[in-house]
Amino acid sequence: MPSVKPIEYAEASPAVRAVYDDIMATRKIDWINNFWKVLAHDPATLKRTWESLKQIMAPGALDPLTKELLYLAVSVNNGCQYCTASHTAAARKAGMSDAMLGELMAVVGMANETNRFSDGYRIEIDAAFEPNFR
Amino acid sequence: MPSVKPIEYAEASPAVRAVYDDIMATRKIDWINNFWKVLAHDPATLKRTWESLKQIMAPGALDPLTKELLYLAVSVNNGCQYCTASHTAAARKAGMSDAMLGELMAVVGMANETNRFSDGYRIEIDAAFEPNFR
Amino acid sequence: MPSVKPIEYAEASPAVRAVYDDIMATRKIDWINNFWKVLAHDPATLKRTWESLKQIMAPGALDPLTKELLYLAVSVNNGCQYCTASHTAAARKAGMSDAMLGELMAVVGMANETNRFSDGYRIEIDAAFEPNFR
Amino acid sequence: MPSVKPIEYAEASPAVRAVYDDIMATRKIDWINNFWKVLAHDPATLKRTWESLKQIMAPGALDPLTKELLYLAVSVNNGCQYCTASHTAAARKAGMSDAMLGELMAVVGMANETNRFSDGYRIEIDAAFEPNFR
Amino acid sequence: MPSVKPIEYAEASPAVRAVYDDIMATRKIDWINNFWKVLAHDPATLKRTWESLKQIMAPGALDPLTKELLYLAVSVNNGCQYCTASHTAAARKAGMSDAMLGELMAVVGMANETNRFSDGYRIEIDAAFEPNFR
Amino acid sequence: MPSVKPIEYAEASPAVRAVYDDIMATRKIDWINNFWKVLAHDPATLKRTWESLKQIMAPGALDPLTKELLYLAVSVNNGCQYCTASHTAAARKAGMSDAMLGELMAVVGMANETNRFSDGYRIEIDAAFEPNFR
Repeated sequence: MPSVKPIEYAEASPAVRAVYDDIMATRKIDWINNFWKVLAHDPATLKRTWESLKQIMAPGALDPLTKELLYLAVSVNNGCQYCTASHTAAARKAGMSDAMLGELMAVVGMANETNRFSDGYRIEIDAAFEPNFR
Repeated sequence: MPSVKPIEYAEASPAVRAVYDDIMATRKIDWINNFWKVLAHDPATLKRTWESLKQIMAPGALDPLTKELLYLAVSVNNGCQYCTASHTAAARKAGMSDAMLGELMAVVGMANETNRFSDGYRIEIDAAFEPNFR
Repeated sequence: MPSVKPIEYAEASPAVRAVYDDIMATRKIDWINNFWKVLAHDPATLKRTWESLKQIMAPGALDPLTKELLYLAVSVNNGCQYCTASHTAAARKAGMSDAMLGELMAVVGMANETNRFSDGYRIEIDAAFEPNFR
Repeated sequence: MPSVKPIEYAEASPAVRAVYDDIMATRKIDWINNFWKVLAHDPATLKRTWESLKQIMAPGALDPLTKELLYLAVSVNNGCQYCTASHTAAARKAGMSDAMLGELMAVVGMANETNRFSDGYRIEIDAAFEPNFR
Repeated sequence: MPSVKPIEYAEASPAVRAVYDDIMATRKIDWINNFWKVLAHDPATLKRTWESLKQIMAPGALDPLTKELLYLAVSVNNGCQYCTASHTAAARKAGMSDAMLGELMAVVGMANETNRFSDGYRIEIDAAFEPNFR
Repeated sequence: MPSVKPIEYAEASPAVRAVYDDIMATRKIDWINNFWKVLAHDPATLKRTWESLKQIMAPGALDPLTKELLYLAVSVNNGCQYCTASHTAAARKAGMSDAMLGELMAVVGMANETNRFSDGYRIEIDAAFEPNFR
């Protein structure tokens, strides 16, 4: 059970509804997921988070699918269940196939394994990996 | 200082040299980075890790640059300094521009922020995010 | 389902009951939450943990509400569901309002975002941030 | 060495300088720390991050010192060295005494210990900890 | 609900069945747990993960029980619910008593507490802890 | 540089000296490592932490070497540099060979890989892994 009551559209303030409307329009959907309905409890955070997310996930030097894959990888890494479920759905919608999910998981698993080797053996950074702008 | 002495090519056993040779041939480089020189201390882990990494990072449903970006995102998320340095270099070699790095960091940061919101408010997973194969 | 059976008051040893009694007396409540009933399985850990907790959460240079907020922030950060639920309840009891919870979550989320930026870009510590006691 | 070159005021674009100026004016200081000089590399992230931070850390239901303590606690929890150094300095500036730091660390340490107990024993959430808004 | 459908033995490909057969023969059991049935979706990862696990968990310089305790400690530390449940069962099968579990949890909790102290106070590594092979 | 000045024996209060003396007597050494010299800044935490550590790391159902291996595994997992360095030294002193370290690292790496698979695919806990005390 969430710590605060999700706020439905019908009971939302005009400021919250404006964000809900923009989420639905931007995503071309007709419902709001629990994440936003809980954040609505703090309208400033709701607005700031949605606007940041919208800007960050828009196409740029990286395409939207790549961004969704990165988002999912971090969510898996953090063991966040809601985020893993919602961003698996989002990544599939953006074009992630089962094979891509399998490869994403393999990279995430492998990185976690080698990260522990690097930290555990206290491996020194090779000079060749340092940028040379100094 | 690493916990065990890195093993240089000149002092390596034939089994270790065979892995070193394959790393240099696969990556078309003429040196071995510290990660492998420390793992060489345990030849079975060296061989298994290199062969897994070679298989996982090869082109597949995801292209090599996307895989490097995912690897870097996880390394950043784990706060692993060696891995962040080495995979920033690897990602740049695979084609990551400064703008791509900036967007990767923005996604990683944002995902960490919203992951905490989801866990902190104990948000329930929406039914729409569940797969329907049951 | 927990890994070991929670130990109810009626079936507890005198040593465990003594800790349970002190928890109820200190907190002015008439029940014991699952955390302690599971730890009771290892009486030395039960006693040590309760005594440490009692000492640490008592008023000091920081007031009890601030301590509860810190405890909750760490629990959220670790994605610990039991701890997030129990310390949200404890923080509310100590005086946390909905607005305080919203601000706590905003700080926790923001800190996670900027922590990843710092680690990801491998930012150097400014000399001005170092203490000058040397 | 950071992954991208910090951008000094003299070489910054007008958009970056505007953020730098606002940071210095808001904080009543005459220098910019490395965090912002590295983020300046991606002006949209620099602006968004600074504006979010300024809003989040302003006085609200929680006072600025409490917010700094929470920020530091999360940074310690993530093992982020830059953030721990910079937010220790920020918290001291906001009024954190040595005794407060000692108690903050005691709470952070204790929360990490009990979080592992809760996750490790898979302790069930007590009904009494659930909110009753349903 | 898992993100991909677990693959039962009856519907598995010969390559997947070969791994399932080896798991059951090695472990002297007649069923396959969900972990492998989900990984079966990506046969290369299934095979690589099982073969790595079989090699790593075999008796060596460390006995199988010690290895299971280490595996459980890491799973607890990551807050991974599936892994904590399955490796608690595996460790019990390998000989872990309730008292051993209690001591494992005490060490894991203590290590998390002191890890935060070390990172939080930015404690410098004593020269005596460095190996002297240089 | 640490956040607070380490307290040397010569300048320590009698209460702090008593803990230092007990550490040196228990460990049969004639020096104090930085961890305790920094904690000495908060004598209650110094005393509580040392006494907890002494109790937890004493021989019990698990032998001291196994406890040191668990402590090191958690420290590696948290990416804590001080703890990894100091507990690698402590584990070697307790009898950890290079081969044991190699196997510990392999288990820690593998557990991190499979933990991410379990969380990432949202794998359901098999009924057979649940204890049957209900």
